[in-house]
Amino acid sequence: MTLTASVVGASGFTGGELCRLVTAHPDLELVQATSRSATNKTLGSVHPNLREVDLRFSDPGELQDVDVLYAGVPHGVSMERIDDFRAAADTVIDLSADFRLRDAAQYDVWYDGHSRPELVSEAAYGLPEVNRENIAGADLVACGGCNATATITGLHPLYEAGVLDGDERVVVDVKVGSSEGGASGGAASSHVERSGVVRPYAPTGHRHEAEIQEHLGTEVSFTAHAVDMVRGASATCHVFPDELPSKAELWQAYRGAYEDEPFVRLVAGGSGVYRYPEPKAVAGTNSAEVGFELDERNGRIVVFSAIDNMMKGSAGQAIHATNIARGLDETAGLDQLGLHPVGKP
Amino acid sequence: MTLTASVVGASGFTGGELCRLVTAHPDLELVQATSRSATNKTLGSVHPNLREVDLRFSDPGELQDVDVLYAGVPHGVSMERIDDFRAAADTVIDLSADFRLRDAAQYDVWYDGHSRPELVSEAAYGLPEVNRENIAGADLVACGGCNATATITGLHPLYEAGVLDGDERVVVDVKVGSSEGGASGGAASSHVERSGVVRPYAPTGHRHEAEIQEHLGTEVSFTAHAVDMVRGASATCHVFPDELPSKAELWQAYRGAYEDEPFVRLVAGGSGVYRYPEPKAVAGTNSAEVGFELDERNGRIVVFSAIDNMMKGSAGQAIHATNIARGLDETAGLDQLGLHPVGKP
Amino acid sequence: MTLTASVVGASGFTGGELCRLVTAHPDLELVQATSRSATNKTLGSVHPNLREVDLRFSDPGELQDVDVLYAGVPHGVSMERIDDFRAAADTVIDLSADFRLRDAAQYDVWYDGHSRPELVSEAAYGLPEVNRENIAGADLVACGGCNATATITGLHPLYEAGVLDGDERVVVDVKVGSSEGGASGGAASSHVERSGVVRPYAPTGHRHEAEIQEHLGTEVSFTAHAVDMVRGASATCHVFPDELPSKAELWQAYRGAYEDEPFVRLVAGGSGVYRYPEPKAVAGTNSAEVGFELDERNGRIVVFSAIDNMMKGSAGQAIHATNIARGLDETAGLDQLGLHPVGKP
Amino acid sequence: MTLTASVVGASGFTGGELCRLVTAHPDLELVQATSRSATNKTLGSVHPNLREVDLRFSDPGELQDVDVLYAGVPHGVSMERIDDFRAAADTVIDLSADFRLRDAAQYDVWYDGHSRPELVSEAAYGLPEVNRENIAGADLVACGGCNATATITGLHPLYEAGVLDGDERVVVDVKVGSSEGGASGGAASSHVERSGVVRPYAPTGHRHEAEIQEHLGTEVSFTAHAVDMVRGASATCHVFPDELPSKAELWQAYRGAYEDEPFVRLVAGGSGVYRYPEPKAVAGTNSAEVGFELDERNGRIVVFSAIDNMMKGSAGQAIHATNIARGLDETAGLDQLGLHPVGKP
Repeated sequence: MTLTASVVGASGFTGGELCRLVTAHPDLELVQATSRSATNKTLGSVHPNLREVDLRFSDPGELQDVDVLYAGVPHGVSMERIDDFRAAADTVIDLSADFRLRDAAQYDVWYDGHSRPELVSEAAYGLPEVNRENIAGADLVACGGCNATATITGLHPLYEAGVLDGDERVVVDVKVGSSEGGASGGAASSHVERSGVVRPYAPTGHRHEAEIQEHLGTEVSFTAHAVDMVRGASATCHVFPDELPSKAELWQAYRGAYEDEPFVRLVAGGSGVYRYPEPKAVAGTNSAEVGFELDERNGRIVVFSAIDNMMKGSAGQAIHATNIARGLDETAGLDQLGLHPVGKP
Repeated sequence: MTLTASVVGASGFTGGELCRLVTAHPDLELVQATSRSATNKTLGSVHPNLREVDLRFSDPGELQDVDVLYAGVPHGVSMERIDDFRAAADTVIDLSADFRLRDAAQYDVWYDGHSRPELVSEAAYGLPEVNRENIAGADLVACGGCNATATITGLHPLYEAGVLDGDERVVVDVKVGSSEGGASGGAASSHVERSGVVRPYAPTGHRHEAEIQEHLGTEVSFTAHAVDMVRGASATCHVFPDELPSKAELWQAYRGAYEDEPFVRLVAGGSGVYRYPEPKAVAGTNSAEVGFELDERNGRIVVFSAIDNMMKGSAGQAIHATNIARGLDETAGLDQLGLHPVGKP
Repeated sequence: MTLTASVVGASGFTGGELCRLVTAHPDLELVQATSRSATNKTLGSVHPNLREVDLRFSDPGELQDVDVLYAGVPHGVSMERIDDFRAAADTVIDLSADFRLRDAAQYDVWYDGHSRPELVSEAAYGLPEVNRENIAGADLVACGGCNATATITGLHPLYEAGVLDGDERVVVDVKVGSSEGGASGGAASSHVERSGVVRPYAPTGHRHEAEIQEHLGTEVSFTAHAVDMVRGASATCHVFPDELPSKAELWQAYRGAYEDEPFVRLVAGGSGVYRYPEPKAVAGTNSAEVGFELDERNGRIVVFSAIDNMMKGSAGQAIHATNIARGLDETAGLDQLGLHPVGKP
Repeated sequence: MTLTASVVGASGFTGGELCRLVTAHPDLELVQATSRSATNKTLGSVHPNLREVDLRFSDPGELQDVDVLYAGVPHGVSMERIDDFRAAADTVIDLSADFRLRDAAQYDVWYDGHSRPELVSEAAYGLPEVNRENIAGADLVACGGCNATATITGLHPLYEAGVLDGDERVVVDVKVGSSEGGASGGAASSHVERSGVVRPYAPTGHRHEAEIQEHLGTEVSFTAHAVDMVRGASATCHVFPDELPSKAELWQAYRGAYEDEPFVRLVAGGSGVYRYPEPKAVAGTNSAEVGFELDERNGRIVVFSAIDNMMKGSAGQAIHATNIARGLDETAGLDQLGLHPVGKP
């Protein structure tokens, strides 16, 4: 049985990716894609990869009734329009930050407060690897932030194994591509200024710290850098536990956490060019690569995690959560293989 | 019914792309992938996008019997091993230059001669848009060169419409990505030297001139430039016909040639960022984008054609030809949508 | 004796490059840099390479008296403000298109007409290789457009040698970097959309055709492509003369034209990675590289010309013209060596 | 008075950069440039930016007598040939790792031991900001490693101010360009595989840890990532001191250390695109940019340091050390301004 789906905010990057994935999904049918700025234009006029999709953007004020609605709108807009979204669809998958945090009080600390705090506890966090059971049957899913997804996916096995127990030092240094900035960039997003950069941004106080802490139970010192790629987020996590586990214990923790996960693969060492997780290797796919190295000299575990921020970090995660929420085959519509070679994904 | 398939030369770029496509094809099963240099290694150790494919490279000297064999070997090797290939498979799809030209004498002009000239006329040129009827049922298919494919796809409608009649001036300026150089590059292929280049190569006397001329009946003045992308070939063709057609006549020629073609889309003008064919818009797909502009001041038609050299320009074309040769659904295994945004495909 | 200089429009890319060059020039002193949008900010806040220059942008309405004024303003603004500029400075070097064409009537064809047609014949075209004698002593110099500069520099020797005599077919295919678009770009200039492109723009009817024709006496069929670099313009010119010269005659023509030119070097063949002109090899310098190849099969000469559009194609040319106009050492302030290796200039 | 200079290993990247800098230096004259692989070729055939330098590579076995010899040879070669070098020149500036560590025993830990341990204490570490007084008059200078230079330059003021006192946690996450890999790269250095990467390498146990520790008196947990640039090293240092200084105290520490340094500029905050240190802003120059941010939530100081690895990180540092060692003007030959805009330096 095919489920009908709509994408709100479909002319943005995340919205376009959702349209691509819904179009290719065997159990979903894209019936509406809204855009305020591109109403009545074809999807292909904004997203050239969708030139063969026979659909035009419609007005976001006129939502059709669907089985699943994807909200690809800016932070703040989702909480404003959440009642409309829920009236239009049985299942709402929100890709903004508006329902990500479980503790409504945190919105006062990290954002401008929350206008619908009573809904925060209703929403299921959309990252299946840490929250699968709550996503099943949920009618409101809040997908994780891309940087938080990369970090949590990397460190979750250490949390499960008790290596992270709440008071150790964790430094997370994330490198991200320009698609994170969205379709409406300023001077810093221009090709001229953004090419070839290693540019610190949000070096302290990044909002994803709150989200990470909720799921790992430990504070992280987070810093992000813009680098010269378009898709991709790579988290390098430096963990200093009270007691350093052995390499065998690490493997056991990671294998235990992920060996049955369809969208996580462990990449640690080996030979060849691709010995550690890399965004290039997962570009265009919903897979996360996770790996680690033990630094006995410094009492450190270095964990690497790489995702495509448009896929595992947003739209792919949304489809994955949909599959679980609606009881579809968990990997349906997400079996794309990546490309090799590929330049700058 | 599933057809078994093998890829000879599977550790190269083209071979890896063939493995990706065969793996994802609903009617093909990858049973063998050979590599001299990587025998016994996993496919994923060379092609990180194939880490989940459970197969190891085998010795190219021990070919299994299959329905379809893809030869992703260097020029010269195919003609040497063609008897082995044909003994192992009912259908051989060759991706080298060895059987591309229909006139064996041309091999003496452009290559080092041909050791099996009697087979040249047997092989069907693998570009369906110009040779579909001969591919159907063929047991030896020779896929076109990537630059020739881009050029022929761009100009074929003008040939069909009689605008090209053999004696007009045609200049073809092709821009190509670094994957054309193959996996074993020298200093010119290093990241340091190849980044950011506009580098003329084979500015005159490029071998694809012969192939283009066979299919368009006219000599072209061909020049290629390396630019900073990995996948992709973009041909800009400057045509000076005896009599300049009108824009309506051009549209008629191109629509007539391509409106039923599943893998060619016309892109000419319009608004937005993507108004002409671009390799970015087709990266990872088997589609060609074709467009044109009329230059009345100079009596010129400018034709643009963009493909992914790894797909439409080699491995995708091979699958497309397979589908036709073996009577499968013509688009089977080739329904990948491209990515947007994407950096340097 | 040091000449005082001002840069009008100094927060743009060309203006910033002029500030860099004036600052480093042994005989010039930068006394004013104007910017409407950045008035009172430091130069370094806009141009990070100028962080150590102790100067702030001033209001473009309050011009100081100087020896040399550089106008780095948009097309149309120069003709409006030309009287102010000439009142403020003995020598005005204009980098807009406003005084480039010698035939005022051409402005009606290619631009929106000209408000000061009587000044057009007064201005000296600023490319020394074709107009040195008129630049000497000139009080109004109009620097060439970047694409025109690349093309004219490439083809001028053929014009001088009579190979170009007005009626042969010439196709010019130019590849340009994103700095040509200026500091205020739209969606097409974003990193996301501009990375990895081969994007036709102005495929026909480019305004530089007029400028090229004035200096070469022949019509050219011009097409430009955006490629993934920031600085640089590379012109590939396909020339079909009535009679093809020999390679020796070509060398004679090019050596004759350029052997005494300090800012043109001939690069044709040889071994190694850099066998033809490339923008990478001249990035950050005022040099043009020019080379050629003979295509006897097609009766064609292929000429390659590569410049840094910010230097030889605008600001460097302006300094070169200043040196000649004011009787300074011709290479003063322009002795920068390029970088190797360098990524994407 | 002009000093004569030779560059040993001049066909490598560092050697080529040395040739560029010596050529442009007002007080140095390049009289010899050796290369085993390119003997008798022109410098310009390998380094296209040096096409106008009239010199050919000579045999490294036949060293001329000079005032200053630069050794741009691989690690291990310098200690083998050090007597030859010192016989040929009054001042030897070594750019390998062979004489960088002050404690000879460390070579047994991090390298393959040392064949001339008695010379280790003679060599002056070449980074002027931390060792100016010992460089003056030195006849053997060992330039710092590029990653170590970026890190030490970033953290030295904290060491001077006593914020680093030997037992705090310091994580250093460095992003480097492909020129660090040298001119002879393998598959991982190809354009195809290296484009668009965020690739961990030497995630633990990097040799520069030893060098950093010698100068900062504290152990650092060091990890390097390859990113898509050619020139540049960017160090992000996460420091967790026992007691967090105030922002004013930090500024005092950094201003105190660097306000008189000609090649360090403090970049911390402000407006515009370039608010923190970036490799792009210093490409082609000998400047380091250093900045910091205070993270009170996590008790952390984040320090950013950006250099051009070919300049401040090797060849530029070598010239700077030469100027000090030989009593020349300290900034002679190093007054290049960077470029803006620039793509991927």
